[in-house]
Amino acid sequence: MALVVNNGPRRSAAGVFTSNRVKAAPVVWSEQVLRVGAVSAVILNSGGANACTGPAGFQDTRATAEKVAASLEGHRAGEVAVASTGLIGVRLPMGKLLPGVESAVAALSADGGEEAAVAIKTTDSVHKTAVVEGAGWTVGGMAKGAGMLAPGLATMLVVLTTDADLESDVLDKALRAATRLTFDRVDSDGCMSTNDTVLLLASGAAGVTPEYAEFAEAVRQVCDDLARQLIGDAEGASKDIRIDVVNAATEDDAVEAGRSIARNNLLKCAIHGEDPNWGRVLSAIGTTSATFEPDRLNVAINGVWVCKDGSIGADRTAVDMSGREVVITADLAAGAQSATLWANDLTAEYVHENSAYSS
Amino acid sequence: MALVVNNGPRRSAAGVFTSNRVKAAPVVWSEQVLRVGAVSAVILNSGGANACTGPAGFQDTRATAEKVAASLEGHRAGEVAVASTGLIGVRLPMGKLLPGVESAVAALSADGGEEAAVAIKTTDSVHKTAVVEGAGWTVGGMAKGAGMLAPGLATMLVVLTTDADLESDVLDKALRAATRLTFDRVDSDGCMSTNDTVLLLASGAAGVTPEYAEFAEAVRQVCDDLARQLIGDAEGASKDIRIDVVNAATEDDAVEAGRSIARNNLLKCAIHGEDPNWGRVLSAIGTTSATFEPDRLNVAINGVWVCKDGSIGADRTAVDMSGREVVITADLAAGAQSATLWANDLTAEYVHENSAYSS
Repeated sequence: MALVVNNGPRRSAAGVFTSNRVKAAPVVWSEQVLRVGAVSAVILNSGGANACTGPAGFQDTRATAEKVAASLEGHRAGEVAVASTGLIGVRLPMGKLLPGVESAVAALSADGGEEAAVAIKTTDSVHKTAVVEGAGWTVGGMAKGAGMLAPGLATMLVVLTTDADLESDVLDKALRAATRLTFDRVDSDGCMSTNDTVLLLASGAAGVTPEYAEFAEAVRQVCDDLARQLIGDAEGASKDIRIDVVNAATEDDAVEAGRSIARNNLLKCAIHGEDPNWGRVLSAIGTTSATFEPDRLNVAINGVWVCKDGSIGADRTAVDMSGREVVITADLAAGAQSATLWANDLTAEYVHENSAYSS
Repeated sequence: MALVVNNGPRRSAAGVFTSNRVKAAPVVWSEQVLRVGAVSAVILNSGGANACTGPAGFQDTRATAEKVAASLEGHRAGEVAVASTGLIGVRLPMGKLLPGVESAVAALSADGGEEAAVAIKTTDSVHKTAVVEGAGWTVGGMAKGAGMLAPGLATMLVVLTTDADLESDVLDKALRAATRLTFDRVDSDGCMSTNDTVLLLASGAAGVTPEYAEFAEAVRQVCDDLARQLIGDAEGASKDIRIDVVNAATEDDAVEAGRSIARNNLLKCAIHGEDPNWGRVLSAIGTTSATFEPDRLNVAINGVWVCKDGSIGADRTAVDMSGREVVITADLAAGAQSATLWANDLTAEYVHENSAYSS
């Protein structure tokens, strides 16, 4: 359990949530909180997603927010966001959780960011934080997430904070622009969570209002850094796969082709086996609606163009896949747009982690 | 390598092919053959998909058909369908393949069906055949396929034959109606092949023209039987998963929800671990555009309604998942339509089979 408190003077905030139509109670709650626009605190728990728990589960979320507000000076439950992660379809252990809130309040400190990042880990093997410094202001963030990373937000709980002095609508614009290019473009296993939550809180404590472009770029960098850390720690993965789709007719085409490649189980197995099996890249592209001609497609793996004009290219034995990072470049030869996505290989360890116990 | 010859008197035929936009040379060739409507022979090879091999690969397919026609009495290359399976992006070993055609012709026999079904196996652990008898006519079939089984036809080579006396357009109608409900509704790993081919040849040798409904039902039964055999032999699988989506607003909704469930890696891992993790069923449904209300969804696993009204239902420990077959019933509570799909669990053996060598 972790608690993030915004000491102000400002309490503006923005949030992006899962696009799964089955949403966890804390997502429904926090969306309501964000509608007002002020977030004074965020309480995060692992050990239970509080998803598919009905009206009683929603009351558990509300009770958690109320407990946080009651345990802090000058907070209202309606400004407390809640984020949960863990097994779907079980009630939270409220008898343990509510006293946990009190402990979290007692442990609050100005330099507790690292500790909070550790506290929200579930199957994460490492905690994830990132910071970008502006001129007199800072954006920092922490993330948890190791599985169920997928489009429309990888499964993750992310809290970004800044001391910049900005209104909620500016935060919202910067956060949406950033997540579209970062968290929305990682895909560890094609599965979309019921609990994805990315929050950005601004305290205004720096007394500085940065230029929008500069601030947005800082938010993008922090999100990009955290997204890359999520992929690097995905459940059971032994390879991080960067997919650059280039020369697409539109950015949407590039993303669609990239997602199809990212989700292809056979390709993910081949990369696990360090096999530059470019045929599986082409068969993945072939299932999309992107503009392309099959006999103009080119594919490079780690810089070696193993497929040229939809057919056999350079010698595949020239590809070195021994490193952790594998780069697949898919050239659609249909335009000038591009997109980069991140994925992982599929391993026996992934199967083990997701079959050996309920999660 | 296997050879199927239609001795007539009729040589009508129908075919259904992969909807992957990246199509193997033999698929492009056989689609052309089918456009004329007569198929006198089918030559099938494993060991190479002849996909993404450019114009030279297409010439290899043409040379194979020409060799078959030259080795048989009264056949034209333009009536010889070709089906290949194996690694994408490598040329076929024509120096071995063309003599192989001669051997196949020499080995032709009226009761060689079983032998042919064995010959087309790749990673299949068993050969797959099925037969339905009508009044004075018969429909039989053989299939190969163990991986890359996915929507819009599982990856497979299937040849059905009948001695019924029917025109190609009748065969086409019956075959499309059958594949839509059978091969199109199995999904072992979400991956769509470049080589899927299902052919139905009619010789008319029985001299009987069955009623359409009766014949179509026989074709559907043979396809259904073969599709079930494909799922039962999917690479690395330890469970066959039957997904019944019921009370959907439309059949399309039922199929969309079913496919999303069928492809969810986390759910497939859970079923491998005999964990009745219904939350993963709901989160899969939540990514679809099907009509449903999250708080009206119900899910049963092997008959136990573990999820009621989108929330916790019967005790999940009551579910027995020890058998090979697992039935997931997803009740969308939105209408009266339904669909059944088949999938497999995701196992360490699947990862091994698809990472240890190129395929």
